[in-house]
Amino acid sequence: MKALVKRNFEPGVSLMEVEKPTPSKNEALIKVSYSSICGTDLHIYKSDVWARSRIKPPLITGHEMGGIVVETGSEVTQVKVGDRVAVETHIVDWSCTLCRQGKAHLCSSTRILGIDCNGSFAEFVSIPETNLIVNSPIVPDEFLPLEEPLGNAVHAASITQVSGKNVLIVGGGPLGLLLLLVLKGYGASQVIVSELNDYRLTLAKNLGADLVIKPDELNLLNIAKEATRGEGVDVSFDMSGHPLGINDALKALKPGGHMVFFGLPTSDISLNITDDIIFKGITLHGVIGRQMFTTWYEVLSLLENKKIDLSPLITHRFPLSEIDKAMEVMSQGRSGKIILNPEL
Amino acid sequence: MKALVKRNFEPGVSLMEVEKPTPSKNEALIKVSYSSICGTDLHIYKSDVWARSRIKPPLITGHEMGGIVVETGSEVTQVKVGDRVAVETHIVDWSCTLCRQGKAHLCSSTRILGIDCNGSFAEFVSIPETNLIVNSPIVPDEFLPLEEPLGNAVHAASITQVSGKNVLIVGGGPLGLLLLLVLKGYGASQVIVSELNDYRLTLAKNLGADLVIKPDELNLLNIAKEATRGEGVDVSFDMSGHPLGINDALKALKPGGHMVFFGLPTSDISLNITDDIIFKGITLHGVIGRQMFTTWYEVLSLLENKKIDLSPLITHRFPLSEIDKAMEVMSQGRSGKIILNPEL
Amino acid sequence: MKALVKRNFEPGVSLMEVEKPTPSKNEALIKVSYSSICGTDLHIYKSDVWARSRIKPPLITGHEMGGIVVETGSEVTQVKVGDRVAVETHIVDWSCTLCRQGKAHLCSSTRILGIDCNGSFAEFVSIPETNLIVNSPIVPDEFLPLEEPLGNAVHAASITQVSGKNVLIVGGGPLGLLLLLVLKGYGASQVIVSELNDYRLTLAKNLGADLVIKPDELNLLNIAKEATRGEGVDVSFDMSGHPLGINDALKALKPGGHMVFFGLPTSDISLNITDDIIFKGITLHGVIGRQMFTTWYEVLSLLENKKIDLSPLITHRFPLSEIDKAMEVMSQGRSGKIILNPEL
Amino acid sequence: MKALVKRNFEPGVSLMEVEKPTPSKNEALIKVSYSSICGTDLHIYKSDVWARSRIKPPLITGHEMGGIVVETGSEVTQVKVGDRVAVETHIVDWSCTLCRQGKAHLCSSTRILGIDCNGSFAEFVSIPETNLIVNSPIVPDEFLPLEEPLGNAVHAASITQVSGKNVLIVGGGPLGLLLLLVLKGYGASQVIVSELNDYRLTLAKNLGADLVIKPDELNLLNIAKEATRGEGVDVSFDMSGHPLGINDALKALKPGGHMVFFGLPTSDISLNITDDIIFKGITLHGVIGRQMFTTWYEVLSLLENKKIDLSPLITHRFPLSEIDKAMEVMSQGRSGKIILNPEL
Repeated sequence: MKALVKRNFEPGVSLMEVEKPTPSKNEALIKVSYSSICGTDLHIYKSDVWARSRIKPPLITGHEMGGIVVETGSEVTQVKVGDRVAVETHIVDWSCTLCRQGKAHLCSSTRILGIDCNGSFAEFVSIPETNLIVNSPIVPDEFLPLEEPLGNAVHAASITQVSGKNVLIVGGGPLGLLLLLVLKGYGASQVIVSELNDYRLTLAKNLGADLVIKPDELNLLNIAKEATRGEGVDVSFDMSGHPLGINDALKALKPGGHMVFFGLPTSDISLNITDDIIFKGITLHGVIGRQMFTTWYEVLSLLENKKIDLSPLITHRFPLSEIDKAMEVMSQGRSGKIILNPEL
Repeated sequence: MKALVKRNFEPGVSLMEVEKPTPSKNEALIKVSYSSICGTDLHIYKSDVWARSRIKPPLITGHEMGGIVVETGSEVTQVKVGDRVAVETHIVDWSCTLCRQGKAHLCSSTRILGIDCNGSFAEFVSIPETNLIVNSPIVPDEFLPLEEPLGNAVHAASITQVSGKNVLIVGGGPLGLLLLLVLKGYGASQVIVSELNDYRLTLAKNLGADLVIKPDELNLLNIAKEATRGEGVDVSFDMSGHPLGINDALKALKPGGHMVFFGLPTSDISLNITDDIIFKGITLHGVIGRQMFTTWYEVLSLLENKKIDLSPLITHRFPLSEIDKAMEVMSQGRSGKIILNPEL
Repeated sequence: MKALVKRNFEPGVSLMEVEKPTPSKNEALIKVSYSSICGTDLHIYKSDVWARSRIKPPLITGHEMGGIVVETGSEVTQVKVGDRVAVETHIVDWSCTLCRQGKAHLCSSTRILGIDCNGSFAEFVSIPETNLIVNSPIVPDEFLPLEEPLGNAVHAASITQVSGKNVLIVGGGPLGLLLLLVLKGYGASQVIVSELNDYRLTLAKNLGADLVIKPDELNLLNIAKEATRGEGVDVSFDMSGHPLGINDALKALKPGGHMVFFGLPTSDISLNITDDIIFKGITLHGVIGRQMFTTWYEVLSLLENKKIDLSPLITHRFPLSEIDKAMEVMSQGRSGKIILNPEL
Repeated sequence: MKALVKRNFEPGVSLMEVEKPTPSKNEALIKVSYSSICGTDLHIYKSDVWARSRIKPPLITGHEMGGIVVETGSEVTQVKVGDRVAVETHIVDWSCTLCRQGKAHLCSSTRILGIDCNGSFAEFVSIPETNLIVNSPIVPDEFLPLEEPLGNAVHAASITQVSGKNVLIVGGGPLGLLLLLVLKGYGASQVIVSELNDYRLTLAKNLGADLVIKPDELNLLNIAKEATRGEGVDVSFDMSGHPLGINDALKALKPGGHMVFFGLPTSDISLNITDDIIFKGITLHGVIGRQMFTTWYEVLSLLENKKIDLSPLITHRFPLSEIDKAMEVMSQGRSGKIILNPEL
């Protein structure tokens, strides 16, 4: 089959013919319909410091995906050939104390599709049946790969009440924009998006942001205060991982507010804990992955009932063979979500 | 000034000239712009069993209201003449252990406007300043009286997560319909409304209910299960107070679900606690009033940012002098919210 | 091996020689050290209405147990021969939407040890490895069978805050007394126990109840109010399933309080929802089983660190052969927990 | 009357005769029975950087106190002459949006007794009646001043579940030790205390710490892991404000754990947000003051029912005139709580 393989730590990936995988007894073989590109895929593509320390080439990369079950292992009972599925990308051990407490998304043995084992930028991929999420026909094919990052956003948005609240998103990349869609759908009173990149700011505005701020031209804190009778926002989400962004997100909060850490800083971050956290009685949440599988049921429910429309967020579509062009667009921040089609 | 006075326990109320009230030192005098009619007002109008046991005529009835501050008591500091205000109708003591724990809505000394003291079906009414909610010019005058019952709905909707969930409302009266607007605004995946009255069912459909059920023709439980892959709803709200409605709302829940009791039963209700509550691990919430004043800030935020449009729910407008006509329409269940105008 | 078998619906059980079970690939064979007797075992012993509708003889009864792993199925990886284990008695499917959301204790396919399949009143029993809880040597052998009902009590006590609160337990049977131990350990300010049986009242007092009430002689509500400055208790637990007990537990609550339904009523219960639930803003929780396996880790932690001493609750010990005597004592309510030893 | 006055920013305070205060209409005059010394008092005594930026001499310092109502203002209704009271030291405006949402402890207009207005190191002090907490005769006089910092500890301990959990306290000063007493009382499975000072470590051990660690001799993280089967603690409390202490507290957590920030850092703190917060799904809570007045009712309930014994924590008693000796002992960390008696 065709697959995009990270063969070594030179930049880029190679479109190659590789052997089609065979599902083990608890796995199903999935014919990939679409993948979408995650920031992680770009890190691997570029062979950055993180990628060099984490992955072991050769590796088929990619993890946001949808497809059709075409073969099932001998002990598979929960899916059948023909099922249309999205995929939870964290493969966990189900036996550690965290998994046994309903915190599988924090399992310390987690292996991630396309990072720790072969992924979805290919024609086929074999996946444990417990990780497969059967979708109703109502959900369009192109939405399936987006369910995984949408789950991140739903998980983040569910960690504290956002309905009827003023919220700030720092960082309008694809995940920040997915979060924007979720927060609008959940009835946040105002969603303010802070982002440097003009393309993304425009996209945020088009997706319904109540206020967009470009923090290099304007003072984020003043604007956030002004939009909230001088009080500050109820909830802020850092999707940037940037030191200034994180501190802005924290300082923009009103006393008693909640902050979500989502974007991954690449180095230690310095915080004014006394003034910005203790005196204001702030609660902070580190958010990773999706709740397995509470979040997924919510994602399915939102999409099946058309409460969230992902279409305007899908800005580009490429065949696997044009991965270099796709990564170039993504690298420049001139995209929402990019879909990869293995068949083209 | 003109006022609708409940003079004794004969049915009805009388439009009379009465003395204009004088604000005490912590009160403000409000010129009423609009009132809306609550089910409680109808109970008092009819002098039913509850009304006879609770109110002490003569009494100016009415409590859902908006107006303008025209005079302030000597120690009033938080509002000023000209402020446009809605009113929290629970007048509490602020000194009992419940008030001192942020549970003023449960204060055991609560006095309610238009029930325990003179109310808003009049040209003027005097109100403690702590109960006044100053509104921004963005919110239309006619919405102000509806903020109080909207607060009930927001309080009920905030008691457990509804975003991304399947919910059932049993009882599509004005409060059930306000709740419908809130649940839609908060991103519930599906809102199912069960109601006997055709007028209200049509209104529910127009206001965005995903599914409406007339339980005398159809089997509520089967329909609710069918709409939820056989699982049952995540959250159900009883707004009816009816024995069958309450039991339906409970049985329609999936295991682990939440139920809100809002409608007031007039007699004891028999429940299958073993099968419907314990074996299913259900959580039930008795909900009364609004959180003072957390709920109000959320109401203001939703209306100022136009996240909820109350217009389609306002179906009738009458002058005070046509109270009999208004009560007749309401009695028949052929209305959404009815607005009373003291000036007409 | 020896086992107590419910052969048919005549009252009682028979001590018989039966075939030793063989573990399937995901099971381990456990040599039972001790079992303890649950109220359910008494229902089955007596062949009451519930038992006749639920079990299918012949059946080895019993489910509260501890023992040693003596053989493991071919795919067992989490326990090994020699491990000393307690047992989660709910055997669930791990694949339904409830199990996949961390609510396995609400799985609709649950099979219960000693009710739906052969149980622990025997020399050996075969158990799925996921249901085995390996214990540290610090925990005494006799405590192992009590971990399962202790888990019920911990689950009930964890559903709302009890530390620093005034709480009421209605029903001082073995589970009510385990709950008493947990509530005392968790720093409840006052634990009030209401119970008719003198033996149990004395045991409750000895186990540390701050106040014991015999509701046929005294007025429970007056006493509960008096003990709480007239306010009522913060949390009440009904462990009785009795109509009067449930209503007392509800009425004894202060506004904003929480009630836990644990005892199983045998018929519908009539409640004053308006006055006792809605006007008081009460939250009610149906509690069943234990959280799998969050509760178990807490149980282990409490016992390993000697925060709860179960010794004074173990009042009787019998060999399997004296089951009739054990059931007689239990039937009269003249016991705490009764231990059965298969070896004697 | 006699009072300890901070006259200017020279180190120390002066015992002086000053005018006895007169209560305003909403205040009561309190004859101080005992005060206790807070770390803040030491900062003011020493005139450190923070003190110089915050207080405005001349000022009577001190805020942890108990006493007797000896005179009441004209509008006081909730206390009467002879009442024995403890004091909430945050004087708030009750009218800002935070106060009106039950978050008075976060009121941005807060004035603190003995910092922003005259305090309790005196024979008399005048206090708003809403800040007075009437105590039952069961609670000893010397415990009254300790209720305020005990409230801090109760507030911190109530922010997430600690019963049945493994917890770490970093910093065994007086507040850390009060927290230790609360956590033990609430049934934490293990309380580990990390502290450099030998006197405090011994006191922690005597007060019931399950494990005490001196982090300069031993590796805190290894010990915390070892005490928790390699998993890490469920909850950690930083009471030190120290950069190393905060990072230790964070790194000692298991995935999904909770951390409380209580000790005030004097400069920005650098955190590894990616590894220590996001990947582990940690929740962090900034905690300040006490919930007004939910925490106080819990404090009263714990003390009246003798669930927490403060006696072993009171290590020194001095008259006002020996303030220099008292501050010297405290400065060296050779004390638990120190009581000041205005009468000696």
